Amino acid sequence: MARWQPDARGRLQAAAFELFRERGFDQTTVADIAERAGLDKRTFYRLFGDKREALFSGSGHLEEVLVKAVAESDAGPFDAVVAAFGRAAEEVFVGRLEFVRARQAIIESSPELRERELRKTDSLVAAVTAALRAKGFAETTATLATESGAMVFRVAYARWIAPGSDASLSDLIAEVAAELRAITSPVGSHQ
Amino acid sequence: MARWQPDARGRLQAAAFELFRERGFDQTTVADIAERAGLDKRTFYRLFGDKREALFSGSGHLEEVLVKAVAESDAGPFDAVVAAFGRAAEEVFVGRLEFVRARQAIIESSPELRERELRKTDSLVAAVTAALRAKGFAETTATLATESGAMVFRVAYARWIAPGSDASLSDLIAEVAAELRAITSPVGSHQ
Repeated sequence: MARWQPDARGRLQAAAFELFRERGFDQTTVADIAERAGLDKRTFYRLFGDKREALFSGSGHLEEVLVKAVAESDAGPFDAVVAAFGRAAEEVFVGRLEFVRARQAIIESSPELRERELRKTDSLVAAVTAALRAKGFAETTATLATESGAMVFRVAYARWIAPGSDASLSDLIAEVAAELRAITSPVGSHQ
Repeated sequence: MARWQPDARGRLQAAAFELFRERGFDQTTVADIAERAGLDKRTFYRLFGDKREALFSGSGHLEEVLVKAVAESDAGPFDAVVAAFGRAAEEVFVGRLEFVRARQAIIESSPELRERELRKTDSLVAAVTAALRAKGFAETTATLATESGAMVFRVAYARWIAPGSDASLSDLIAEVAAELRAITSPVGSHQ
């Protein structure tokens, strides 16, 4: 029986990630990635569309986890979004800190990648907002709850990947959400 | 005595704005703008750096108003930022709805302009966060308060410039801030 081999998608992602770390994103071509993975350029383009996309294939999964968690939640809109990011912390990010740090360093190195990341975030925010709208929340409520939840996640994530951090992403999300609640609670009660 | 003439900066901005509306941003050159203003390209580049900047010269003023308002406030961090945007609504935006709508339509028409707008927003958020840090607030507190306040402003501003809207920007800011408070208040109290 043949040895198990990761699928083409997985091999290309792994090859892209290695090459971006070794040579930098700009210095890596799609031909280099395909060669490292033992595949051809056509396969790469069929699966990813462009070079940047090899670094973002996980974002569809993250979006699915968030939308599902929000759809299933009985909580208020902000709590639902924060809990959804908490679930994503467990299902998508746990145990992957070193990978996430390395990936983020690659993204920060390229304006093109930062731009793609912003678009992925926009798409994710739109999907979560739509999931709240589908539960009957008004548009402004859905927008504010999603953007506040995404902000909590962004701040928690930045702390999580910062050098020397040792808290878990879920704990950081809970902590930052509590701080946001305190800051936005009525005047006089937050200091 | 010579007739009063707007200064070179004002004439170039007005010419750029007219041409972007008439022809579109991509179809307008810096030479066109200078010619319409009766000035030369060198003057344009000396004052603005690049074509995009002609549409963003007000953002420095907005940043100043916000930083000053935050620095002078005695309120908690989120209230200070919301109040600062309220002051900006009165000092920078009042009476300018038609101009703001036309300007926003130009920005939405060009990825280059949207990118510049994002950078201006980042710079503004960094300046307001720094103003809160200077008042002694912790980094996470300052970040969350500024980003929440900026989110309130963004949602209120989108409603303000939407077709058919007739509420004032300051009222919308107050309304959206109240809604954010309600959404992030403890479970059970927001529905």
